[in-house]
Amino acid sequence: MDKTVAAELILSWEKELDLEWKSILADSPLVKLINTGIEDRRLYGLYLRETFHYTRHNSRNQALVVQNIPGNTVQEIQYAKYCLNHALEETGHEFMALHDLNSLGIGHFTPQDFPEPLPETRSLIHYLYSISESGNPYQRLGYSFWAEGSYRYFQSVLSACRKNMQLANNNMTFFVQHSDIDDHHYQEIKDLITSLPLTTNDCKAINKVMIESLQQTAQVLSGVCRSYESQLKRDKEFKI
Amino acid sequence: MDKTVAAELILSWEKELDLEWKSILADSPLVKLINTGIEDRRLYGLYLRETFHYTRHNSRNQALVVQNIPGNTVQEIQYAKYCLNHALEETGHEFMALHDLNSLGIGHFTPQDFPEPLPETRSLIHYLYSISESGNPYQRLGYSFWAEGSYRYFQSVLSACRKNMQLANNNMTFFVQHSDIDDHHYQEIKDLITSLPLTTNDCKAINKVMIESLQQTAQVLSGVCRSYESQLKRDKEFKI
Amino acid sequence: MDKTVAAELILSWEKELDLEWKSILADSPLVKLINTGIEDRRLYGLYLRETFHYTRHNSRNQALVVQNIPGNTVQEIQYAKYCLNHALEETGHEFMALHDLNSLGIGHFTPQDFPEPLPETRSLIHYLYSISESGNPYQRLGYSFWAEGSYRYFQSVLSACRKNMQLANNNMTFFVQHSDIDDHHYQEIKDLITSLPLTTNDCKAINKVMIESLQQTAQVLSGVCRSYESQLKRDKEFKI
Amino acid sequence: MDKTVAAELILSWEKELDLEWKSILADSPLVKLINTGIEDRRLYGLYLRETFHYTRHNSRNQALVVQNIPGNTVQEIQYAKYCLNHALEETGHEFMALHDLNSLGIGHFTPQDFPEPLPETRSLIHYLYSISESGNPYQRLGYSFWAEGSYRYFQSVLSACRKNMQLANNNMTFFVQHSDIDDHHYQEIKDLITSLPLTTNDCKAINKVMIESLQQTAQVLSGVCRSYESQLKRDKEFKI
Repeated sequence: MDKTVAAELILSWEKELDLEWKSILADSPLVKLINTGIEDRRLYGLYLRETFHYTRHNSRNQALVVQNIPGNTVQEIQYAKYCLNHALEETGHEFMALHDLNSLGIGHFTPQDFPEPLPETRSLIHYLYSISESGNPYQRLGYSFWAEGSYRYFQSVLSACRKNMQLANNNMTFFVQHSDIDDHHYQEIKDLITSLPLTTNDCKAINKVMIESLQQTAQVLSGVCRSYESQLKRDKEFKI
Repeated sequence: MDKTVAAELILSWEKELDLEWKSILADSPLVKLINTGIEDRRLYGLYLRETFHYTRHNSRNQALVVQNIPGNTVQEIQYAKYCLNHALEETGHEFMALHDLNSLGIGHFTPQDFPEPLPETRSLIHYLYSISESGNPYQRLGYSFWAEGSYRYFQSVLSACRKNMQLANNNMTFFVQHSDIDDHHYQEIKDLITSLPLTTNDCKAINKVMIESLQQTAQVLSGVCRSYESQLKRDKEFKI
Repeated sequence: MDKTVAAELILSWEKELDLEWKSILADSPLVKLINTGIEDRRLYGLYLRETFHYTRHNSRNQALVVQNIPGNTVQEIQYAKYCLNHALEETGHEFMALHDLNSLGIGHFTPQDFPEPLPETRSLIHYLYSISESGNPYQRLGYSFWAEGSYRYFQSVLSACRKNMQLANNNMTFFVQHSDIDDHHYQEIKDLITSLPLTTNDCKAINKVMIESLQQTAQVLSGVCRSYESQLKRDKEFKI
Repeated sequence: MDKTVAAELILSWEKELDLEWKSILADSPLVKLINTGIEDRRLYGLYLRETFHYTRHNSRNQALVVQNIPGNTVQEIQYAKYCLNHALEETGHEFMALHDLNSLGIGHFTPQDFPEPLPETRSLIHYLYSISESGNPYQRLGYSFWAEGSYRYFQSVLSACRKNMQLANNNMTFFVQHSDIDDHHYQEIKDLITSLPLTTNDCKAINKVMIESLQQTAQVLSGVCRSYESQLKRDKEFKI
């Protein structure tokens, strides 16, 4: 794409994301719960449980995209390589979430015998497979676009958790690692978008998946909150 | 299965569904919205829009199940025929939802140029494909089991809509038709379950999909509510 | 389609098939082998083994086609119903091939413990899934078109087998049954093609799959011959 | 696996491949044709045409394997990374075959408008997708195992072509590049097999795919020969 056009496009997406994030954070029951100063690490554990689930699928659905790229031009080959490289980088990251979960002192979990995901997480996972294996081959970039640039948005919520739940770096390797590589990845994805010959339809599809996948992720956060509260209610000795 | 065992199993599923439905209806933002006495037919229209989407896939994912049946025994062949017959019966039912939507006086929609599904609906659709094409071959029966016996649960919500939105039978052909055939289908599925040599694992898988697919459908209802409210907010003249 | 146009189209396909069949039969190592007057029923058994495999998938990939039909018009819904009905009719037909195989006195086979398909058969099966679940939704008609009208082509080869291998009707139920229903099915598929609003592209896709699926089936026949000869060579007491 | 066990296993596979290759080369009509001293570059062109087709799918079906790996252990994650890395390396290699084809002076081809594959090549491609996306997750290693160590077997045939058809390195970039990286890849795959905790069933599945995929490739070579001869016959001015 023309560099100026790409820069404007990216800027407009960032503005839209800014609004969406503000609206999500303002309405989020999970954020409200955290802001009451909650000290219970099990809430963080429930969040890590869901993170384990969708993260383990992210590498796979990212790799699936290559089935869908025509591969007739240098740029298409370049994009296929980006997808595989990105899938490669994400492979096994769920083990960081697992490590963090097991570091909390609230139980020991293994991948073989892991609790089932919440319906909202299942929904997100299926959504991501769906947009990866069919439809516009570029649309999954909308997910990566917001995901790689998201740390700034929940930094303050995360800090609240860290303080109130007395979390050390060793309980947060997933976040520490990802916030480190995020800046790099975010630049990479912006460069990629600039270099690809995206059509108006491609850009619309990317934009749609960007907003929808963020909203689906927000549903996961609400699900974590709901799950925490209903477990508290039902069961005095609740377990993840 | 032994007839007594099957009858007990079915009874236990019905009890579990009863609880799940009560919990869903109690928490559902859509039900709360309807119970405020809302008269706006566009809310019903948004619901029909999503119904059109998942219904058009139900016949397809039902047919997919046959990929997954070993087909080594007479009963397995019988079950494959049930799946194809059921798919055959559901084919084209989305046109009833379309008819109802177009009868509301809020716009004219065609299948060729239909608005995209909400992300929650997309997820439900992908979920149903996923449990149809992989995993336990009997598990989709869990979806049919609750779906065919569900009218009693939302009858009162539907009645509220009918009254407040001044809906006639001609605006509700999808519901009228389905509640008619439901009793028949529900008996059929209970007979089928009784006749199949289901193992404990099969029953667990059916039970799991029963609850999960109901929860995913509840997500769609919440999505309809969210979509209605966000459209109201953003846009004075909102369109489906 | 216009009836005259459809009749001409069908005639042109029949002519093309005539040429393709002649070329296949002229080059086929299996036909050459049979024409040496071979009396060994195990060759027929090897053929039935492969027939069991692809037949058991034919109902499944036929059902898959409905994933691919837009379903926006009455004719498309009609075509979806044809696919499901056709899948329904084919369900379980592999048991006829199994019956015939077990009637030969060369061993007893069960679906649960059946020898693996040859690579060529595996390819045919995957090819049929591939053209059923993606690409032009009408193209699988090309496979049905030649398959339903194929008995005339290999009648003489079949007669040679029947005579030389001393096969009775009870050893050939698969063929007897299919040649009976073929005339009916062949008329049905010609009527369907005439009734559908096929575009030039649809017709090209049907034509392509017609030739390709026939060629892939010819590969299976060559595989049967290769397998027979290599087993003869390697093993004095070869088993299917 | 235990190192000694792995070394013995690999040795036994190499011996089996040795026999299979000898049998293939002895029977191959293409090798016979080349050994008549044929100078016609179009034969090489037909081979490159098929190479373009299956090569463009190799990266994709390699990537597909990750959908099939449980990913519960360090070794499974390691294997998933190998698959993605290997897919990455193969991405775009079909453009080397295209370059070589276009360098022969027998026509200009583009990926967008490329002649269709032969049925044998289609068969190979479908076979590879089939064994990549279903069945034993390790079995595709059988394909890589022979493919990475294959240059020694057709070196002499290739030399004959090079001499008789007056081919320069620039007409053979695909082969030159691959024979260079092969030694490295072959060592890599042997190390991988040694490091993985393969069960007896895994090894059997790998062995089966090794032989079958080699045989399917041999069919492609025969198809190239058949296609050359039939085009010579049919058409004085034959085109690829």
